[in-house]
Amino acid sequence: MPIIQFNLIEGRPESLKRELARRVCETVSEVLDVSPTTVRILIHEMGLNDFSVAGMTVAERLENSTPGVPYEKN
Amino acid sequence: MPIIQFNLIEGRPESLKRELARRVCETVSEVLDVSPTTVRILIHEMGLNDFSVAGMTVAERLENSTPGVPYEKN
Amino acid sequence: MPIIQFNLIEGRPESLKRELARRVCETVSEVLDVSPTTVRILIHEMGLNDFSVAGMTVAERLENSTPGVPYEKN
Amino acid sequence: MPIIQFNLIEGRPESLKRELARRVCETVSEVLDVSPTTVRILIHEMGLNDFSVAGMTVAERLENSTPGVPYEKN
Amino acid sequence: MPIIQFNLIEGRPESLKRELARRVCETVSEVLDVSPTTVRILIHEMGLNDFSVAGMTVAERLENSTPGVPYEKN
Amino acid sequence: MPIIQFNLIEGRPESLKRELARRVCETVSEVLDVSPTTVRILIHEMGLNDFSVAGMTVAERLENSTPGVPYEKN
Repeated sequence: MPIIQFNLIEGRPESLKRELARRVCETVSEVLDVSPTTVRILIHEMGLNDFSVAGMTVAERLENSTPGVPYEKN
Repeated sequence: MPIIQFNLIEGRPESLKRELARRVCETVSEVLDVSPTTVRILIHEMGLNDFSVAGMTVAERLENSTPGVPYEKN
Repeated sequence: MPIIQFNLIEGRPESLKRELARRVCETVSEVLDVSPTTVRILIHEMGLNDFSVAGMTVAERLENSTPGVPYEKN
Repeated sequence: MPIIQFNLIEGRPESLKRELARRVCETVSEVLDVSPTTVRILIHEMGLNDFSVAGMTVAERLENSTPGVPYEKN
Repeated sequence: MPIIQFNLIEGRPESLKRELARRVCETVSEVLDVSPTTVRILIHEMGLNDFSVAGMTVAERLENSTPGVPYEKN
Repeated sequence: MPIIQFNLIEGRPESLKRELARRVCETVSEVLDVSPTTVRILIHEMGLNDFSVAGMTVAERLENSTPGVPYEKN
């Protein structure tokens, strides 16, 4: 009966969410030795000001990042 | 102090969400013998690719369902 | 696919948790017009210092309540 | 590693969410004596019919409130 | 920044929880193309009367299962 | 109506949980300009193998840490 809730920053394509569901179900089913049909996955997407580390939201980090240096926003 | 979080597929009318809040509050208040004023209900709606069973999202199931056969998308 | 998470103060008997599961499933199934088999309910119990209102935990309220006056601890 | 999830009624400006993240991180870091970099905050906003007290959603309360009397919708 | 919450029935050995964390982190990191260091996994274990399907808790199902027929309690 | 859920590694004294509830309520009430009575805080404690970063649980990190070098386990 694993029920798994993902919290992700919004913006990923629908096809990637489908792949995530499929791949995580496979892994969980295998590791816990349960039928895939018992695995439920929920995805909750958040806006760029709805997630923060050290008091700074993702949106703030993006605004403050150096141009040309990729920011790992995930 | 029951705090109750619902995870539902999006698309239900607002009137149904109100009825859900009212009816679940009644049931919980009665079963747990607590005042209705202590019952808080939160509803979280998910998109069709944000919930999956057995690695397959609701959207995928709808695409693959046989025409004419109703799919229980709830 | 309703997935419902309850947050409750610990201490209720197991029989009451079973009744809660049964009754809430009935209500949700009826209101949302979904099969009972799609309704999943999770209960999360919290200790007396793990829930607070207005900055005061349940344990603190119980310590400060007037003797003889029942406190609604639910 | 505190991971903190906020459930709020939608409608607050982005600047307020940023201030909330900053201020709560400060407080938690100070009280628990942990580095701010270990504090993660998630905000989940809900629609006016997605939160209810005593079986009545915020939207219903707003509709039923007396004109001229401010309703604390927070 | 994926933050992933697992809800599982209690009783799995600690070694399996470690393997679950390791394997799910690998899968998520690969599918979403993010650094493993951004992946956080939380496990929440529930008692046998804290999870129900169709209004019947896991404990009730175990009591009602036919002797000799394994019950998938996952 | 802020409802705030904390996920923490287990082991903090009850007095600290009370202080956390009080201080976070103050901060949230002030920043969001809402009455303290609308602020609810829930604490969920996790075991040392129930939280992981980069696929490694807190317990594993503690086992692998260098003696004499404090590990920030929070």
